[in-house]
Amino acid sequence: MSKAVELAKHLQKLHINNMYNEDFYWTWDKTGEELDAVFTVADALRDLRERNISTRVFDSGLGISIFRDNSTRTRFSFASACNLLGLACQDLDEKKSQIAHGETVRETANMVSFMADVIGIRDDMYIGEGHKYQKTFMDAVQEGYRDGILEQQPTLVNLQCDVDHPTQCMADLLHVIHHFGGVENLKGKKIAMSWAYSPSYGKPLSVPQGVVGLFTRFGMDVVLAHPEGYDIMPDVEDIARKNAAASGGSFSKTHSMADAFQDADIVYPKSWASFAAMEERTKLYAAGDQAGIDALEQRLLAQNAEHKDWACTEEMMKRTKDGSALYLHCLPADITGLSCAEGEVDNSVFDRYLVPLYKEASYKPYIIAAMIFLAKVRDPARALMELDARGGQRKHF
Amino acid sequence: MSKAVELAKHLQKLHINNMYNEDFYWTWDKTGEELDAVFTVADALRDLRERNISTRVFDSGLGISIFRDNSTRTRFSFASACNLLGLACQDLDEKKSQIAHGETVRETANMVSFMADVIGIRDDMYIGEGHKYQKTFMDAVQEGYRDGILEQQPTLVNLQCDVDHPTQCMADLLHVIHHFGGVENLKGKKIAMSWAYSPSYGKPLSVPQGVVGLFTRFGMDVVLAHPEGYDIMPDVEDIARKNAAASGGSFSKTHSMADAFQDADIVYPKSWASFAAMEERTKLYAAGDQAGIDALEQRLLAQNAEHKDWACTEEMMKRTKDGSALYLHCLPADITGLSCAEGEVDNSVFDRYLVPLYKEASYKPYIIAAMIFLAKVRDPARALMELDARGGQRKHF
Amino acid sequence: MSKAVELAKHLQKLHINNMYNEDFYWTWDKTGEELDAVFTVADALRDLRERNISTRVFDSGLGISIFRDNSTRTRFSFASACNLLGLACQDLDEKKSQIAHGETVRETANMVSFMADVIGIRDDMYIGEGHKYQKTFMDAVQEGYRDGILEQQPTLVNLQCDVDHPTQCMADLLHVIHHFGGVENLKGKKIAMSWAYSPSYGKPLSVPQGVVGLFTRFGMDVVLAHPEGYDIMPDVEDIARKNAAASGGSFSKTHSMADAFQDADIVYPKSWASFAAMEERTKLYAAGDQAGIDALEQRLLAQNAEHKDWACTEEMMKRTKDGSALYLHCLPADITGLSCAEGEVDNSVFDRYLVPLYKEASYKPYIIAAMIFLAKVRDPARALMELDARGGQRKHF
Repeated sequence: MSKAVELAKHLQKLHINNMYNEDFYWTWDKTGEELDAVFTVADALRDLRERNISTRVFDSGLGISIFRDNSTRTRFSFASACNLLGLACQDLDEKKSQIAHGETVRETANMVSFMADVIGIRDDMYIGEGHKYQKTFMDAVQEGYRDGILEQQPTLVNLQCDVDHPTQCMADLLHVIHHFGGVENLKGKKIAMSWAYSPSYGKPLSVPQGVVGLFTRFGMDVVLAHPEGYDIMPDVEDIARKNAAASGGSFSKTHSMADAFQDADIVYPKSWASFAAMEERTKLYAAGDQAGIDALEQRLLAQNAEHKDWACTEEMMKRTKDGSALYLHCLPADITGLSCAEGEVDNSVFDRYLVPLYKEASYKPYIIAAMIFLAKVRDPARALMELDARGGQRKHF
Repeated sequence: MSKAVELAKHLQKLHINNMYNEDFYWTWDKTGEELDAVFTVADALRDLRERNISTRVFDSGLGISIFRDNSTRTRFSFASACNLLGLACQDLDEKKSQIAHGETVRETANMVSFMADVIGIRDDMYIGEGHKYQKTFMDAVQEGYRDGILEQQPTLVNLQCDVDHPTQCMADLLHVIHHFGGVENLKGKKIAMSWAYSPSYGKPLSVPQGVVGLFTRFGMDVVLAHPEGYDIMPDVEDIARKNAAASGGSFSKTHSMADAFQDADIVYPKSWASFAAMEERTKLYAAGDQAGIDALEQRLLAQNAEHKDWACTEEMMKRTKDGSALYLHCLPADITGLSCAEGEVDNSVFDRYLVPLYKEASYKPYIIAAMIFLAKVRDPARALMELDARGGQRKHF
Repeated sequence: MSKAVELAKHLQKLHINNMYNEDFYWTWDKTGEELDAVFTVADALRDLRERNISTRVFDSGLGISIFRDNSTRTRFSFASACNLLGLACQDLDEKKSQIAHGETVRETANMVSFMADVIGIRDDMYIGEGHKYQKTFMDAVQEGYRDGILEQQPTLVNLQCDVDHPTQCMADLLHVIHHFGGVENLKGKKIAMSWAYSPSYGKPLSVPQGVVGLFTRFGMDVVLAHPEGYDIMPDVEDIARKNAAASGGSFSKTHSMADAFQDADIVYPKSWASFAAMEERTKLYAAGDQAGIDALEQRLLAQNAEHKDWACTEEMMKRTKDGSALYLHCLPADITGLSCAEGEVDNSVFDRYLVPLYKEASYKPYIIAAMIFLAKVRDPARALMELDARGGQRKHF
């Protein structure tokens, strides 16, 4: 029996009735079995692809991508995922559109979704805005479908909002699962989700939030470390706490990177801006106060510079379990001596983990494809088995 | 019998021998039966899609889009239409090309058309230029095909020129046909194609021109209303007059929005620049006279501002048939109190018509697909029947 | 027997074991039989397409294009070639990416290649950089494949580097082969690869280098003509010399355009910057010396202007064999009196060769498709025969 069929048999046992035709906003909206389903389908699609079996389930149809912030990895991952399933990718470039003319989100949403099966949106720049935009957009297309404007109901893949970055964090986790040989081996493992110094400003909170909101569901000891004043959204901390209690793991916080790294099995050192600062920025932005925004930026850069010792150095790595914790990053990283003078991580550390880091990233297209697959295919387990049995070649000859 | 097959049977009776391998510039180039064919194929393709039947008639091939002005709706409609039929969409972004180097249109046309089945062009900015560009482009690809440079003869879908906007106006009309329950019910219906105030400048004439040039063919009473000095192209008025005489309808002009709206079944209030002003701008542009262009813009904005009472207000709507004429717009509209302080339409009016407005827009991808289908498929009626009979799924599983 | 099958039978006899899974950097990396294979497959794919036979060998998959310089022809040729074989084209637009943040080429290469079958790169601006970038990129994806990051090994099509422009020069040559009725007729033909005056600055060397590096392999008399100080890379001249010796042709240099054109069967007059100047620019660029770059540009433009007599005039054409040598250009050309006041070629000369020039360009999509085909398909001769026998329609109905 092929790996894909084995995975399909596992999928059959999961309760995933609420995934069909549903949006994917945040991992904590989903049950444990639903997350399991995403990982399972991702692995199955990868196995089929590795065996040159076509996984095109669409004979035409569009995936619409909207990137309100620059992107390479996620853009290409979304395009790859669409292509893998037979969708063409159509990007909404707001600079080439007439959207600036005061068009409502509701109108744009309908206008770009006429033959769209899936919508991928990245909107991570402003706290309190990113998720709201996605929700408004998807409410509009749902109404559009109900009103007979759209022939099919497009579903969302959140490609990063101000709250969560589910495709990233689930790719991170699938990498961790494979690294430790199975989800059952994660119990009791310690992960340090730690702030790290970066010379740049205003990095989104969605990765640390997504990580503590997701990894706490697997019985792990999740430690969130950051200097004072770099708090994440309290709502997400609450979720992490509840998750940890339910899964038999723990969620704790510290202001010491060294403590967090101590005996950690996994480290995820990464810069972000504080929740409070990002809220302030959102308000200044709404008020059109550019001078205020500039002043805030200077203040935050100065504040960052006080914490240059928050770096994933060789010394810091030595504190981890056997000195060889699994190093995670969503990329691109600020690498000391390579991409900047002082950054998140020592070049020698980063370099040692290049292959696992790229592998971590390589799960993202499959995670996205799995989210689409589960939202679009009525009986995903049967579909995987039929794809496998049919054995249509992706590359002929 | 499915709706698609019924429509195919109707299509069989139409004389459409001149559509195969032909370009679509202006609706008035086409016979009544040819327009009927476009509506019929659009409805059939939509029916097939709604029943999850694949309408891919191409196994590879390109649709080339050239937008010389910003676009969201039309861009996505063209991409959707190409995708529906199995073509990949390739956009010519003049900023990324070497075209600025003085390359001729003839050369560009051949260079981007090597495997193109269809070319969609939007060039609506300069009176006397848009259509000319499209014609020069298509003459070049026809020669290219004749000379053995291109393996197939690409055909044009005019995505808006300075004269007509056929994909928009035919989508508008198909919406009207469905709203009134059939093309036979349009006879005697009154439509007010009216100028309306907008704080922006230089909107194309192609929509009002396209509307009076098309709607006059169906026995309707078409009233063109605008303040003095906002005339459209006289040639198109002549066409409208002849159409009205032939179809048993009427074409009249007024300088009163209120008169036009009186007892109207349909209203289409929309801003445009006057033909004379646009001709002046084209000359200034050709002469590279930026100061002249700026001065003209100021003068036209001031002139516009004298006509702020030309707005589709609640009061104005009350004059229409039962106070509830069908409100049309090509979108995006300038909405008073929403996208601008004073604009084309009251927010409350616009909001009441949101669903029909979006539905109106939703016909555009199918109109474009039908134009492509009729230009590419030798026996479109038989093809629709075979697609229906074959029943290949668009979305598997 | 169809032309495609005849060509496939010829292909069967060629030794091309080293093309499968291999990159295409420079024509001189390839054996004569391998070049023959590219021409053969290009002609076969064109024959199949002309007979409406689908040549899709991929059921999904991506072609990634990276243009580090503007492009129309090559961009559309690559997109066409991908489409012809069933790949979707995904462009890496560095402006929309996060690459500026100091990301390494190795990281970018892996991040954009997750489901890529082929990578097309144009990087021709800086001597000593373009090829290096391509090599670094492809080394990274090969490692990525080996390390299990990528499920398939993407292969390169060099869409122009600082050294060679193989897709252009092979399209040029295939045009020449067809013009003279077969590769066997090229023996003893004289081609003048000549510098010509252009009012613009810094045109790449890759075309003249590619031409002398390729055309010398077919027993032709290749003359490289340029004013003093406009030398090409000495390494490529060495290759041309060795090729000529091996093929029984000749490679010579002259500082007289008239001598080069005398009795020439083919002329290729085109501007380029000198190797020495381009090396200087690369150094200034690396040092971030903008003032130096500007000064260099002024100096080079002044130097160019001393050679305005290097133009493909009617007078110059009269010197060629029967006054009617085949005129080649990679396009766009600087045409005297059309795209510039004084340029590479008289308008009347250029105009007389329009159809052959466009035909020359029309081979590029097929050359690219052939390169992809030979790198991806294990038994290309059998594949062509099966495609022909199967006869799947590209356009149905």
